[in-house]
Amino acid sequence: MKGNVIVGQSGGPTAVINSSLAGVIKAAKKNGAGKIYGMHHGIEGFLKEDLIDIDDYITGPDDLSLLRRTPSAFLGSCRYKLPQIEGNEDVYDKIFEIMEKYDIMYFLYIGGNDSMDTIKMLSDYAAMKEKPQKFMGVPKTIDNDLPLTDHTPGYGSAAKYIATSMKEIIRDNESFGAAKPTVCIVEIMGRHAGWLTAASVLSRGEDCDGPDLIYLPEVPFDLDDFMEKVKHLAETKSSVVIAVSEGISLADGRFVCELGNSNDYVDAFGHKQLSGCASFLANKVTQETGLKSRAIEFSTLQRCATHMASRADVTEALDVGYIACEAAMQGQTGMMVTIQVNSREPYMVTYNKYDIHEIANVERKVPHDWIINNGTYVSDKYIEYASPLIIGTILPYYAGGLPRHLTLKNKAKK
Amino acid sequence: MKGNVIVGQSGGPTAVINSSLAGVIKAAKKNGAGKIYGMHHGIEGFLKEDLIDIDDYITGPDDLSLLRRTPSAFLGSCRYKLPQIEGNEDVYDKIFEIMEKYDIMYFLYIGGNDSMDTIKMLSDYAAMKEKPQKFMGVPKTIDNDLPLTDHTPGYGSAAKYIATSMKEIIRDNESFGAAKPTVCIVEIMGRHAGWLTAASVLSRGEDCDGPDLIYLPEVPFDLDDFMEKVKHLAETKSSVVIAVSEGISLADGRFVCELGNSNDYVDAFGHKQLSGCASFLANKVTQETGLKSRAIEFSTLQRCATHMASRADVTEALDVGYIACEAAMQGQTGMMVTIQVNSREPYMVTYNKYDIHEIANVERKVPHDWIINNGTYVSDKYIEYASPLIIGTILPYYAGGLPRHLTLKNKAKK
Repeated sequence: MKGNVIVGQSGGPTAVINSSLAGVIKAAKKNGAGKIYGMHHGIEGFLKEDLIDIDDYITGPDDLSLLRRTPSAFLGSCRYKLPQIEGNEDVYDKIFEIMEKYDIMYFLYIGGNDSMDTIKMLSDYAAMKEKPQKFMGVPKTIDNDLPLTDHTPGYGSAAKYIATSMKEIIRDNESFGAAKPTVCIVEIMGRHAGWLTAASVLSRGEDCDGPDLIYLPEVPFDLDDFMEKVKHLAETKSSVVIAVSEGISLADGRFVCELGNSNDYVDAFGHKQLSGCASFLANKVTQETGLKSRAIEFSTLQRCATHMASRADVTEALDVGYIACEAAMQGQTGMMVTIQVNSREPYMVTYNKYDIHEIANVERKVPHDWIINNGTYVSDKYIEYASPLIIGTILPYYAGGLPRHLTLKNKAKK
Repeated sequence: MKGNVIVGQSGGPTAVINSSLAGVIKAAKKNGAGKIYGMHHGIEGFLKEDLIDIDDYITGPDDLSLLRRTPSAFLGSCRYKLPQIEGNEDVYDKIFEIMEKYDIMYFLYIGGNDSMDTIKMLSDYAAMKEKPQKFMGVPKTIDNDLPLTDHTPGYGSAAKYIATSMKEIIRDNESFGAAKPTVCIVEIMGRHAGWLTAASVLSRGEDCDGPDLIYLPEVPFDLDDFMEKVKHLAETKSSVVIAVSEGISLADGRFVCELGNSNDYVDAFGHKQLSGCASFLANKVTQETGLKSRAIEFSTLQRCATHMASRADVTEALDVGYIACEAAMQGQTGMMVTIQVNSREPYMVTYNKYDIHEIANVERKVPHDWIINNGTYVSDKYIEYASPLIIGTILPYYAGGLPRHLTLKNKAKK
């Protein structure tokens, strides 16, 4: 018996965040952990001692298989940022008190940049106070913006959903032909990094032209140039499909979505909730050209479509969870597991662990030389990079024609 | 040799409109047709003699299988309404001239209400002028609003997509729990008939509560009552998910989407292009309650997601195409094939043919007694009705991790 394990999920869910949870559970069992606790709604729930006994819900391989086919955070997520240590020792003392109360030695946190910051603070505090508990980060974000890892679990499945849906939308948009030219503008998540929007190019192939224009947030958006390009395309093509990131902004720094009158919110991390740049652009196209236009937002569908998960992604999500938990139980702390791609064709990966200080709060963007055609498309280098990440499927378990999910409402029958 | 066949696709595409095309092709070959022509963009293309030789693209069962896995209208669609016969005989004469020129004896049209009107006019004209050509309608519409048929091919797959995505959205919306209650409003197609919006209830099951409120266009929408219900739900639940039809309107007849400042268009049939009622309602919720809200529109995704097609739907779509073509070649005309459900459990269907005059321009809505809770939910009668329509899957053919499609750009290698 090596002490108990606790695992939490944080930030925006992904299609495979539960596969990482499954990996943590597998490693904990394999390495002889005592109890396995889940944080109900991440560190926020943990601070309220809202803990879940994993054995109450997951008792064998069937449950784990269903867990891997369940979207969103099985344990519940949160957006809670730990305060700085200095002046807030009471918060940290409370966390360690709870850990000691439940004999928790290993703390696994599945999340993105903000969650890795949590791991950094807790492992720093443990070092400062000479505490024995181990803290490991499990990478997760559809945004693919964590540094030092080739890519992030969650990204491949989101990219597969985006490329598949983009392909279907392009087919649909072509259906009326020259009699009814339509400009379709598809808005894709990614505030500062264009990885998700870039994935729209993967729809291109022998049976699909892919989007005509692709706008990432890494480069300034030129509204006049955009309108010129749309007019030109509409003269030569009956179907124009454009992918835009929610985070595109003008050279003067204003977000395109702020140019309209959309409703803006600010979340607990001070992130502005952006929405509506596709609507704004579609309206502008119709007003200035008379062309029919349509705005489509993938919204949360792109992060929860587990029915479209990539097999490569599901596998890696499980692996990083497994390796993080195993490493913690072997005494490692203050690190995040990363994916290293040794060969893209054939696709072969190994996993590393990096010091969390090199990762927390660093945002990795699409390289500038992968953004081509004056900021309106992405290069073949991106396609080489992303193609292996969307390979393979994991079929849902169906009941009544719909994918089944595992939920906290259904306690396992023991 | 019995003369040539022509087939066209019209109106908004569906996930299975190409399965009906496959059915027509199969029946034409089986019944010894000469050439099989496709109308490039429906009757509109036909009037320009823009015909496709099906043999150039589809040469065997592999092509037919891929066709059935291809979304949107393979032949291209149109929204073109034939003028009334009186005073426009030249248009009709031209159609029959083209048919005679290409030795076309059998005219199959796959579409919804407006397309069945085309079949009615052409068969009426043929009767009037004692022409020998036969005209048969193949039902297709995600809206499910054609009369006399139990349901319409295209509906089951759209319903499956809506229910699956709704289930994934509900899981996602629950992830942050009580710390961040979110009201998510999902806008679903269906201007006058609520069949598609009703399908959101199919997400309900042992692993999902389904949407909290469901608003169909069949009953007037009460904005004050809606706000009261949302406030009440938000007091007791951390996640509120609401399904609304794009066509909901107030008792005074104004569309909810018109209450905001959304951009409106009018298509060639005089249909207003509605959009934005979910955005309007989400904004209103946040303004009046301070709650976080999110608007999601399925947009064209719900009609083109062939990767999520229902096996029952795909099968029936093929069958109605097959039966319509076979009937035409056996001398029948001026009819549409309908689906009769003899038993819902186990699910058993037969097919009938109805006089097109009883069908064209009649819109079938959700029965009023299936709409319950003061117009905010649908009854178990609807669930009994729709459940068998979403059963079974037809897996895409994958290449590079994405579903492959058959397109007019890829001529068959003969």
